[in-house]
Amino acid sequence: MDLRPVLYTLGALVVLLAAGMILPTLTDLVMGNPDWQTFLIALFLTAVVGGMLMLSTRDSSDTLNLRQAFLVTTLAWAVLPGFAALPLAFSELDLSFTDAYFEAMSGLTTTGSTVISGLDHAPPGILLWRALLQWFGGIGIVVMAVAVLPMLQVGGMQVFRTESFETVEKILPRAAQISVAISGIYVAFTALCMMLYMLAGMGAFDALAHSMTTIATGGFSTYDASIGKFDSYGVDMIALAFMIIGSIPFLLFLQLLRGRPLALWRDEQTRGFLWLVAFLCAFVTVWLVIWKDFTVAEAFRYGSLNIISVLTGTGYASTDYGQWGAFSSTLFFFVMFIGGCAGSTSCGIKIFRFQVLLKSMRSWIRHTLQPNGVFVARYNGRPIPDDVRGSVMSFLMFFMAIFLILSILVASTGTDIVTAMSAVGTAMANVGPGIGDVVGPAGNFSSLTDTAKWLLSIGMLIGRLELFSVLVLFSPVFWRA
Amino acid sequence: MDLRPVLYTLGALVVLLAAGMILPTLTDLVMGNPDWQTFLIALFLTAVVGGMLMLSTRDSSDTLNLRQAFLVTTLAWAVLPGFAALPLAFSELDLSFTDAYFEAMSGLTTTGSTVISGLDHAPPGILLWRALLQWFGGIGIVVMAVAVLPMLQVGGMQVFRTESFETVEKILPRAAQISVAISGIYVAFTALCMMLYMLAGMGAFDALAHSMTTIATGGFSTYDASIGKFDSYGVDMIALAFMIIGSIPFLLFLQLLRGRPLALWRDEQTRGFLWLVAFLCAFVTVWLVIWKDFTVAEAFRYGSLNIISVLTGTGYASTDYGQWGAFSSTLFFFVMFIGGCAGSTSCGIKIFRFQVLLKSMRSWIRHTLQPNGVFVARYNGRPIPDDVRGSVMSFLMFFMAIFLILSILVASTGTDIVTAMSAVGTAMANVGPGIGDVVGPAGNFSSLTDTAKWLLSIGMLIGRLELFSVLVLFSPVFWRA
Repeated sequence: MDLRPVLYTLGALVVLLAAGMILPTLTDLVMGNPDWQTFLIALFLTAVVGGMLMLSTRDSSDTLNLRQAFLVTTLAWAVLPGFAALPLAFSELDLSFTDAYFEAMSGLTTTGSTVISGLDHAPPGILLWRALLQWFGGIGIVVMAVAVLPMLQVGGMQVFRTESFETVEKILPRAAQISVAISGIYVAFTALCMMLYMLAGMGAFDALAHSMTTIATGGFSTYDASIGKFDSYGVDMIALAFMIIGSIPFLLFLQLLRGRPLALWRDEQTRGFLWLVAFLCAFVTVWLVIWKDFTVAEAFRYGSLNIISVLTGTGYASTDYGQWGAFSSTLFFFVMFIGGCAGSTSCGIKIFRFQVLLKSMRSWIRHTLQPNGVFVARYNGRPIPDDVRGSVMSFLMFFMAIFLILSILVASTGTDIVTAMSAVGTAMANVGPGIGDVVGPAGNFSSLTDTAKWLLSIGMLIGRLELFSVLVLFSPVFWRA
Repeated sequence: MDLRPVLYTLGALVVLLAAGMILPTLTDLVMGNPDWQTFLIALFLTAVVGGMLMLSTRDSSDTLNLRQAFLVTTLAWAVLPGFAALPLAFSELDLSFTDAYFEAMSGLTTTGSTVISGLDHAPPGILLWRALLQWFGGIGIVVMAVAVLPMLQVGGMQVFRTESFETVEKILPRAAQISVAISGIYVAFTALCMMLYMLAGMGAFDALAHSMTTIATGGFSTYDASIGKFDSYGVDMIALAFMIIGSIPFLLFLQLLRGRPLALWRDEQTRGFLWLVAFLCAFVTVWLVIWKDFTVAEAFRYGSLNIISVLTGTGYASTDYGQWGAFSSTLFFFVMFIGGCAGSTSCGIKIFRFQVLLKSMRSWIRHTLQPNGVFVARYNGRPIPDDVRGSVMSFLMFFMAIFLILSILVASTGTDIVTAMSAVGTAMANVGPGIGDVVGPAGNFSSLTDTAKWLLSIGMLIGRLELFSVLVLFSPVFWRA
């Protein structure tokens, strides 16, 4: 395999990341925080390494083939956090490289787990950098889901291949243009979210940082108390709305803009997701009213924000829902894995996989009862091809296998079983907080061992890249072919 | 649907169960325990109800069609524990009906979770009855797996249909005869196991009770301290050997007797199971030696017995492995779900399902990398049909969905999350002990609420009957067709 186009692309992405560091450097400079110097060093280092990588491989052909695309995807998400960690490691927060890498990986994968406590007094540049990482990670994943994953045929994403390109061809001719259009929408939503946060009483800086991590369903906050710090009904509702928006396929917003007002509702995945959101909000609200003596308004506010934050993999917490007892902990634990729609910034197993499974199962059950009948499972109006079903199934199997192995390994570092399982789950589903005192919504990942943090970083990476993009690299066939 | 053949078969099974009560009645009578009277009352009640059911439906045709077979399977495993619970409820143990039903369900499904403490002083008739229930449950499930499930095509069991009947036709002509032959082998293994237990120093009564629950991979003991009470290396090794035997498809022993010495090794499921057993024993032994400072002999003894007890769904404990820490708890938690081979007395998801999945996934991954290649997944030398793959996948999905729902419901009764999830897991996989202080190997299920016990009883039933036999009854198609 010719590695030069892979390294060239990687170099370009590293340089882009360096460019991203300009903003927090300026912020610290303007705010008069001496941390701007460490940012400048990190920026310089990153730019030099990225630039050298590009220069040394520039004479390669520009187009990536299938296997090179696989390789560059995983390499990018594994290597970029290493550079993104530099400002965190150099800063006055005094993080170890392990902690800084974990934090950067948590950012770029839009997970939102943090090892930093004392966010309220952290340098503004660092807070902005964390928000930017999630914002970059969010748009990165949407573009990847639209442009790269259907081509790679991983985890059933090929079900969207025909569709996106069919409908897309009617809208805009090429994938690069789609990416630009989607990025525009992403910026517009971020700006809208920021404005609304400011109207609800947030300061400009907090509003910017939170709007970036809301639309990216990332969950980093500028305060240890997360979104609960503002204690505002308005802020909670805005966060709720934009977490939901961030979990809807961005291609559909493009269709919406092009004059198809029903695009969202016609999409089976989005419809399923919205129903699930409505059900979970109603369910948790009713439960809090009946069993925990909340008023209806409070129950809706705290219940909806926290359950949807976990469902979409955002990871904001407006209260320590760990105190609600074992019933809600168990519910939150399972909901964590579901995630939003494919093609959005959200993470987890994703709605369409459950839909493909449920529909396949329904047709099998009918077939069991009426062996001579023919039952075709359809998704978005088209029959589900066998390879999609197969991919979805193997996605789930691999997800569970990796979840199991990582849980056992994390448990062996000395955590309790709930911490191990929920930390791995929250990492692989890119949610943020886990369950229990250590990694729960009121906790922090810093007390885990370095080994556990590296294992969780691997989990975040694998989960974010839909498993197969990473796993395929470990197959002998991949390197032999 | 004509319910008469269903009720007739059910009545016959109830009468058989009543006949089974003769043995403990006699035991208590001979031992001079007044509990024989309560047994006689239970026997009488059971026989009368079963007899009346048979008499009132005897003019029906004898053969069950597909849907009637589904119905009778679930009804049998749901109704029989109700009658089997009578001696437990009437006895001096003073159990509530909920507790007695839970215990009887745990017996007939070969789970082995118990709500009784003070087994060491319980009437001998009760101890024998508990062992008998598991023994009946064990052979019942083997016969069902050979005769009924392949016909019902549930959960991928149809992969064995052709095979069992192909090979079986060469051995014995009819399914009824196979059932008789298998029962003979079952009795022979039980007798052998009992003899060996006695040679290792057990009394005749304990040896009988334990041999029944070992070969049935049930796990009920006559002591609160389970098999650890005997504190004998010999007893532990005999238990280990017969738990493994009980987890191997009984049809293969038939082939072995018919002069095919390699039948076990040629069977892909058995081979996979034995490799897994060897790996787990070695792994836990090494881990106990290195991390817990066991001697090699002790590590092998305690490690192997307890991990294989959980793997096969037996549920004996020779020590409180809950004390070994979070790493082993997490390992035990996941191993719990695996189970033994289909066609054996053991439970759980079962080896062949994992094999079908792994093989299917391997062919999909190859296909992803080489889209033009043709890769056929094979099991036991034959290509895996699409419907088997589909059934296996949907089995797993339903297993997880039910696990999730029951866990949340059990958690809502006030347990902690580990207790809820491991109690539901141990019930659905018919293992016995869960994880944690409450339902762990040193605990007891009696402190759970009645609601939790009923939920777990449902879990045991659904798990034992391979999910679909039960779930299909809730499908409108089933009743409409």
